[in-house]
Amino acid sequence: MIVIGGTASNSIDDKVAKILGSRSSKVESKLFPDGESYIRIPIEVKGEEVVIIQSTYYPQDKHWMELFFMIETLKDLGAEKVISVIPYLGYARQNRRFKDGEALSLKTVLDLLYRSGSDELITVEPHDYDTVISFFKGKVKIVDPVPTLAKELKKITSNPFVIAPDKGALSRAERMAKELEAPFSFIEKERDRNTGEVRVKYSHISGVENKDVIIVDDIISTGGTMAQASRIAYEKGAKSVIASAAHVLLIGDAKDKLSSAGIREIIGTNTVIPPETVKVVDVSELIAVRI
Amino acid sequence: MIVIGGTASNSIDDKVAKILGSRSSKVESKLFPDGESYIRIPIEVKGEEVVIIQSTYYPQDKHWMELFFMIETLKDLGAEKVISVIPYLGYARQNRRFKDGEALSLKTVLDLLYRSGSDELITVEPHDYDTVISFFKGKVKIVDPVPTLAKELKKITSNPFVIAPDKGALSRAERMAKELEAPFSFIEKERDRNTGEVRVKYSHISGVENKDVIIVDDIISTGGTMAQASRIAYEKGAKSVIASAAHVLLIGDAKDKLSSAGIREIIGTNTVIPPETVKVVDVSELIAVRI
Repeated sequence: MIVIGGTASNSIDDKVAKILGSRSSKVESKLFPDGESYIRIPIEVKGEEVVIIQSTYYPQDKHWMELFFMIETLKDLGAEKVISVIPYLGYARQNRRFKDGEALSLKTVLDLLYRSGSDELITVEPHDYDTVISFFKGKVKIVDPVPTLAKELKKITSNPFVIAPDKGALSRAERMAKELEAPFSFIEKERDRNTGEVRVKYSHISGVENKDVIIVDDIISTGGTMAQASRIAYEKGAKSVIASAAHVLLIGDAKDKLSSAGIREIIGTNTVIPPETVKVVDVSELIAVRI
Repeated sequence: MIVIGGTASNSIDDKVAKILGSRSSKVESKLFPDGESYIRIPIEVKGEEVVIIQSTYYPQDKHWMELFFMIETLKDLGAEKVISVIPYLGYARQNRRFKDGEALSLKTVLDLLYRSGSDELITVEPHDYDTVISFFKGKVKIVDPVPTLAKELKKITSNPFVIAPDKGALSRAERMAKELEAPFSFIEKERDRNTGEVRVKYSHISGVENKDVIIVDDIISTGGTMAQASRIAYEKGAKSVIASAAHVLLIGDAKDKLSSAGIREIIGTNTVIPPETVKVVDVSELIAVRI
């Protein structure tokens, strides 16, 4: 087995190779002056099982295309099997058609991943497990970072209460509550399909008084969902609020939004390049044991 | 038949639809805050033959991915046949392995184009016709802009002489010379595979004295090739030098490089967004007649 670090491997390749005790190499890459990516696999892979590690955070399209180039090259060079480890699965949230004619972009990227020659996909906490499994035609393994995040959260909370900021986050909040042996509840939102505006439909959360509230989601992007949930938690009497997510992007003024909503700590993983001020949990071992 | 303008159609869609007298629509698109593209086909395409027009100039990866999303969506929505018109074919120059392990990126993008559901490909003057035809599994039609460029060049030259700046441009220089009923010659270069340095190997061009020299290539990128050829032409006694290419990118200080090498005019087409100072020939009609 050979582990190959892609152009966006975030050092997970080094750690995984060390844990597995396997050979490893970085892909060789550069940008041509016109903006095209150049990719080269610098080692012999003929007849080998190859693990390629490539996250697909921003710029998502570049990282996806480079992954397709790497996989097709590995197969051209005679790799026996290609396992794609994609810690952050870009386009995971475009998994449903809300309006006629919308692209199911997640289906397209997973189709193309398989078509490029990837036999297996390992990813960390995607937005929706079921659509990932149904869209990718090869084998799918999903890494759950919740138990590892819970270990960290235990150290910084005393009387936790878990909240899912919307119904989509319910199962991961439930998993977190179980790990922490804590109570949990949820907020329900609805989106106006025409204006795109999101409003709170249900937030009858009780029992959070004087608790350390942990809001659990898959992604913290612009921070709007987290900030809204934090305000509700404080209204209900929370002592403090912590934001926990597998993938912490913090786009634009998200950091300010979260801190002005009273969030005292943000905890995430290294599936993306974690912004400073985020407490980071390493997912390399969780990935290595699934290979 | 329906013509759909992609996110990088450069208005060619409007002109093609007008020439064909067919229905047309623009794709609906936006960027999510995290940088992912949102794509929607806003019209009914069930049972239709659809022509999607999308160039893949910079940012190439974004434009390619959006094309894949559009095509898969068209097929999901029941389009009978999808013809992809890609005026500028990004990654066309990555069509050969010079070193072991290099990605054949052109093969990958053309594979994925077919896999997304494109039945046919129409492109304008790609870097190498043969590799495009062999890598794309569907039908390929190639549009030759040389006769149209020649018409423009006739207006601004009196005593033309055509030069291919390297052997790769030989066939297009020959086509141009035929159109202009002009003599032609070529420069031969060689690239040091280790340092990447390019030097002139052969430049025994004769008969250019007092001629309007036209240097013909497929792409003007950083301008290095054109500038070098222009200097050689002036050394041999050229009266003036004009640069002609299907795709004029002019990256970085290319414009300055060309003008300080004495190039008096640059002529190209609208397969890319043409930089100011370039004389532009429209390829819409050439494309429309091939659909």
